[in-house]
Amino acid sequence: MTDQSFIYGKNAVIEALETNSREFNRILISNTSRADEKIEKIKELAKNNGVVFQFVSKEKLNQIAQEARHQGVIAQVSPIKYVDLDDFIEKHSEELTSLIILDGVEDSHNLGAIIRSAVCAGVKGIILPSRRGVLVNSTVEKTSAGAVNHISIIKVNSIVNAVQRLKEKNYWVIAADHHCEDNYYYIDYTDMNFALIMGAEHAGVSKSLLKASDFVVKIPMQNSFNSLNVSNALSAIIFETLRQKLVNKRK
Amino acid sequence: MTDQSFIYGKNAVIEALETNSREFNRILISNTSRADEKIEKIKELAKNNGVVFQFVSKEKLNQIAQEARHQGVIAQVSPIKYVDLDDFIEKHSEELTSLIILDGVEDSHNLGAIIRSAVCAGVKGIILPSRRGVLVNSTVEKTSAGAVNHISIIKVNSIVNAVQRLKEKNYWVIAADHHCEDNYYYIDYTDMNFALIMGAEHAGVSKSLLKASDFVVKIPMQNSFNSLNVSNALSAIIFETLRQKLVNKRK
Repeated sequence: MTDQSFIYGKNAVIEALETNSREFNRILISNTSRADEKIEKIKELAKNNGVVFQFVSKEKLNQIAQEARHQGVIAQVSPIKYVDLDDFIEKHSEELTSLIILDGVEDSHNLGAIIRSAVCAGVKGIILPSRRGVLVNSTVEKTSAGAVNHISIIKVNSIVNAVQRLKEKNYWVIAADHHCEDNYYYIDYTDMNFALIMGAEHAGVSKSLLKASDFVVKIPMQNSFNSLNVSNALSAIIFETLRQKLVNKRK
Repeated sequence: MTDQSFIYGKNAVIEALETNSREFNRILISNTSRADEKIEKIKELAKNNGVVFQFVSKEKLNQIAQEARHQGVIAQVSPIKYVDLDDFIEKHSEELTSLIILDGVEDSHNLGAIIRSAVCAGVKGIILPSRRGVLVNSTVEKTSAGAVNHISIIKVNSIVNAVQRLKEKNYWVIAADHHCEDNYYYIDYTDMNFALIMGAEHAGVSKSLLKASDFVVKIPMQNSFNSLNVSNALSAIIFETLRQKLVNKRK
């Protein structure tokens, strides 16, 4: 972890909240801190700015801070600037565009690997829900090997709303779910805008999103053991979309 | 990490070495232990059995052992039984078989994810070099979500020799390397035994193996950023081999 994605200490966190100079993922407060004036101020500012705060053990804070002094408060701030969905759609309106939607992926390493594969495969954006799953933190940034800087990361309050918006704007929405019938490679991805929804590690894609999708696809499993890591599942599907495009181009 | 893949303490390690009841990955010895009779015995037994031992900090040992008492010695033992290459070839001689060869992959999470994808895609074996990269440890076992129990893991002293052996036995050998010309999906995987070589995270596939391979393939990158995680690269290629087989079967 780089320490650039954390802000340590009461005053620094208050300043960042007051100047609104950084995008906050959440603020971690030691559950053994006495509720002094500054802690109260941080909680109030956080509420006003819609920033989540969490009480955690002092050991957890020490682990994050390593050598840094944190005074019982650490803000986890985004190392990247999130992009607005409408701005993204507008920016890419003149070209065929692919997007990935993550429905609550929880593991930072998975998110980092997904961003890496997405960038390599020419995907232009990743949509993350703001209140479930992991956002871009310093582990994600590190695991992505810098790929976060080569793709638009879009944070939305409601994925269902984002899906509706995309459909209005001529995107096809495809969800990956291993309970369905259709193998992912029978879809022709070459001539459309699409958004591919991948589910959380255990829960998969939520029912409301499966219902809202135009297609639901699966990866055929060759074994009674059928649990694929989400970044590896994404990789299989997204490079198939690329294969189709490149093979098609040569025709 | 489960503690089943570690043996803690001098007597337990000596017993396991003497009875040869477990397969050892390596033995970790505290670099602050005094060189007593038992430590000397462990080192001697390790040498005789060809088991690597390493001196590490006491903190490292405490971290691995968590609550367990280790007395300055922890043996990392394989939770799985490795398979002999010739036995594997013999066992699968009546069917088209695919294998993955990992040329020094170092990260336990990557190895776990690779094993998982391999099992899902119907790959029958994974070849690992005994002296470079990571072997199957409890992190690998955990990350693989149990997939280690559904595939043959083959440990070899020399990958170059294994490749020669496979070629003699009618396997085609394909290496993944992003410096080459040919995209991975232009190979027809449907009618052959093959072994796919993936390189280490940073170094890639070694020159001697590239030279020994029948084909070298790459994943085309759509971005100046061109660094794919090894498990995700494997996933893209291995599910393409499966796609070809399943589509071909329907013809």
